[in-house]
Amino acid sequence: MKMTILITLLAGGTLLAGAVIKSGETQSTATPKPDPIKRVGMVVGLRPECIDEYKRLHADSHAGVRDLLSKYHIRNFSIFLQQIDGKWYEFAYYEYTGSDYEGDMARLAQEPRNIEWLKVCDPMQIPLPGAEGWTVMEQVYFNQ
Amino acid sequence: MKMTILITLLAGGTLLAGAVIKSGETQSTATPKPDPIKRVGMVVGLRPECIDEYKRLHADSHAGVRDLLSKYHIRNFSIFLQQIDGKWYEFAYYEYTGSDYEGDMARLAQEPRNIEWLKVCDPMQIPLPGAEGWTVMEQVYFNQ
Repeated sequence: MKMTILITLLAGGTLLAGAVIKSGETQSTATPKPDPIKRVGMVVGLRPECIDEYKRLHADSHAGVRDLLSKYHIRNFSIFLQQIDGKWYEFAYYEYTGSDYEGDMARLAQEPRNIEWLKVCDPMQIPLPGAEGWTVMEQVYFNQ
Repeated sequence: MKMTILITLLAGGTLLAGAVIKSGETQSTATPKPDPIKRVGMVVGLRPECIDEYKRLHADSHAGVRDLLSKYHIRNFSIFLQQIDGKWYEFAYYEYTGSDYEGDMARLAQEPRNIEWLKVCDPMQIPLPGAEGWTVMEQVYFNQ
């Protein structure tokens, strides 16, 4: 019976994290909230002559600033590459699991190693017209 | 026991699909591997005159084929909308947690309700030149 309910929650896309926690812990820890994860999709152009170097810097074997992303509650971060109408674009997806998005992003931006990292990566990118850096896209669908 | 494992699945985001299967089956099915989740990023054009209807069909309040996605182990599915050089594009991200991607996709494609759903959605989309439907993008970065 409980299994059936949990499976329904999984499929529903609107599950309550608190309700899930509740089953394994004491009643007091359960404060149900709808999907507290912030999901971000972003796009930016990439200079074609920089594709190889960009891939090298972002390979699994390259540490980059992976630890800093984790430190500021950015997880499940993927970047995809695609050519559209003759231009190259990067599409990023990540999830923010903290409770102070603006604050964490501001602190990340001040990390010396992140500043150095962006000095390398930013010149490889071509922001969309009118944008600075990545453009955050509008989310129109989510299914848990 | 089963409850606890399902809860880990919901909360963890980094779980091993094999570990979940293990709880309901014999030990022989459990061969833990690092990050067995397949992460897919895709892009397709969207006819500007269809944006409002597309959003309506994909709103949280619309059931669509959410249950079928879950049935075939597609989870954490987001679609983002962005205008680039005057054209509109959808960017999708999802995770596949099953063990037979091609098989599950083939079975999903044969579900009568999915066929009906695509009859409605496909005509709203403009595939990239040379593509049919969504174009799967190259993943160049992942950070857990």
